[in-house]
Amino acid sequence: SAKGDSPARIFAPYTIYKGKAALSVVPILPTFTKLDSGDVRVQRSGVMMLTFWPAIGERKYDWERRQKFALSPTEVGSLLNMGRHDSSEFFHDPSMLTSNAGQVRKNLSIKAIDDGTGYFFSLNVHNNILKSNERFSVPITAAEFAVMKTACSFALPHLMGWHRLTNQSPRGLGGS
Amino acid sequence: SAKGDSPARIFAPYTIYKGKAALSVVPILPTFTKLDSGDVRVQRSGVMMLTFWPAIGERKYDWERRQKFALSPTEVGSLLNMGRHDSSEFFHDPSMLTSNAGQVRKNLSIKAIDDGTGYFFSLNVHNNILKSNERFSVPITAAEFAVMKTACSFALPHLMGWHRLTNQSPRGLGGS
Amino acid sequence: SAKGDSPARIFAPYTIYKGKAALSVVPILPTFTKLDSGDVRVQRSGVMMLTFWPAIGERKYDWERRQKFALSPTEVGSLLNMGRHDSSEFFHDPSMLTSNAGQVRKNLSIKAIDDGTGYFFSLNVHNNILKSNERFSVPITAAEFAVMKTACSFALPHLMGWHRLTNQSPRGLGGS
Amino acid sequence: SAKGDSPARIFAPYTIYKGKAALSVVPILPTFTKLDSGDVRVQRSGVMMLTFWPAIGERKYDWERRQKFALSPTEVGSLLNMGRHDSSEFFHDPSMLTSNAGQVRKNLSIKAIDDGTGYFFSLNVHNNILKSNERFSVPITAAEFAVMKTACSFALPHLMGWHRLTNQSPRGLGGS
Repeated sequence: SAKGDSPARIFAPYTIYKGKAALSVVPILPTFTKLDSGDVRVQRSGVMMLTFWPAIGERKYDWERRQKFALSPTEVGSLLNMGRHDSSEFFHDPSMLTSNAGQVRKNLSIKAIDDGTGYFFSLNVHNNILKSNERFSVPITAAEFAVMKTACSFALPHLMGWHRLTNQSPRGLGGS
Repeated sequence: SAKGDSPARIFAPYTIYKGKAALSVVPILPTFTKLDSGDVRVQRSGVMMLTFWPAIGERKYDWERRQKFALSPTEVGSLLNMGRHDSSEFFHDPSMLTSNAGQVRKNLSIKAIDDGTGYFFSLNVHNNILKSNERFSVPITAAEFAVMKTACSFALPHLMGWHRLTNQSPRGLGGS
Repeated sequence: SAKGDSPARIFAPYTIYKGKAALSVVPILPTFTKLDSGDVRVQRSGVMMLTFWPAIGERKYDWERRQKFALSPTEVGSLLNMGRHDSSEFFHDPSMLTSNAGQVRKNLSIKAIDDGTGYFFSLNVHNNILKSNERFSVPITAAEFAVMKTACSFALPHLMGWHRLTNQSPRGLGGS
Repeated sequence: SAKGDSPARIFAPYTIYKGKAALSVVPILPTFTKLDSGDVRVQRSGVMMLTFWPAIGERKYDWERRQKFALSPTEVGSLLNMGRHDSSEFFHDPSMLTSNAGQVRKNLSIKAIDDGTGYFFSLNVHNNILKSNERFSVPITAAEFAVMKTACSFALPHLMGWHRLTNQSPRGLGGS
């Protein structure tokens, strides 16, 4: 769709500022495509977008150096499943299936803190082309994790496109 | 309702591709009927439709050989109730109450994997008329099962028609 | 509001038919009232309406002899709180605060079955004026109870009127 | 936005009346701001507003002496996380970052009752300027706490502005 057609975008990230870095979480809706039949289908699933960016002074953060990690619906399921002593690890290759495959490796690790009071969210981005390696680590309290779980649980059916299923006119009433 | 009246359908299945077969899950909304009084009632409850189809090569699946199993709201309740070591089994006869009753038997089994890391979803379709017996089995990870539970929990009130109850104009404000 | 103003009502009960009686559950939305300021407030909270009616033969039930029990939001909270071995009991006097107070006593009991496979929902209506005493008892499976819990959890914010709060135009955008 | 532009406000507090004080809970939606690009972003997060006011006789309460405490999304996460034997405490300074900082101290404590049957919600407001100290304490049953948790869980994504994300026109369909 042309840019002029686009509806207003809405920015509503859940952002957590900590000593060494900030982390924001925001759902990205799926894209849809219209079929010849007039019906509509999900083209690309939505994701839960995590963005990390570093602290560069007291209460100052450098947005230019941000790194992203997009959780798929199934990876969101993994996060929802985590108990207070569980850990998870996810690996992404943003250039998968291109000639640059394997050049950039992203690794998100979520590790429970031993005493059950929270988690460490750590993102590592290894870039073979730029010869760079960046690492962010943000401690998340149990309360902040509860917000993430509740909000992800709300958002997940939307990432899958199911909110649209349930908005269609009811069958059996002539579409009115 | 005539075909021309139908609203656009939306396709948003949650699909899991595994070695021997694929499994997709999608909610089907209830149908409604208008009463003489002008009021509306649920005619047929919605279902959670499970579709299995076999792999026929590397990353190739044969949609023509798909088999379906429609979970009722109460069967969805059964799935929502499952802990990580529980199993469930459902039996359907698609020709129930017709002269073909008993000719086709469908059996869906959901079995926890011993170590608690997931479930086996297995569908068996025994057809006495075609003298055929088909069996699909798809291993589901705990993360994929968490997606199913969260999405089914979201969808269940819609299968029951309760999303429409809560959209009606509030009482006491003259319907405006 | 006059009858002509009323929007179409929608009937979508979750109904469970068992040997001796049937039980249906359906949410009733709150009523609202318009204030002089133009604002709107909840006048009467919604309820979760339980209806029991007796079996009078094989698959035949007598709707004329139905009895109702309306769970308030807090009583719904009580039901949501129940574990698989818990029991609850509720007492209502439909004529409370009138001259007939105490003449009719309704008592709903929800009792876990010992082996954790379900609950007994029993309603007792004692009517001193009619010198009648009616009792209904419906066994509910764990799967049916899971449907009730999921659906009540969805409905509860609507009973409280909170679905309307969150539908109002966002503040800070001129109400457009 | 000018007063004339404001949409009708809707009042739907969940109110609990007890012997010494009343407590009401109601979500306040976030505010949004329009960017030059035409896009929209959350300006100020929503809150869950708790209001306490004292009893001054049998079933009489003095609304003029109310005190408020606004739970942020993360503090709501803290409440959602509470098990039946947990306690939480929150400190607010309504004049933070002004010249009056430290003059008024608000302290909300939520304490599980030993036998697991409920919680005490206590608000203490210490005002150095007025030389006043007010204290409210309201016993909350487990059922009432379940209502709060379910309703807060529903409201939390709205406090964050995520309900708006999911209402925007789907991408890929030309904004229609």
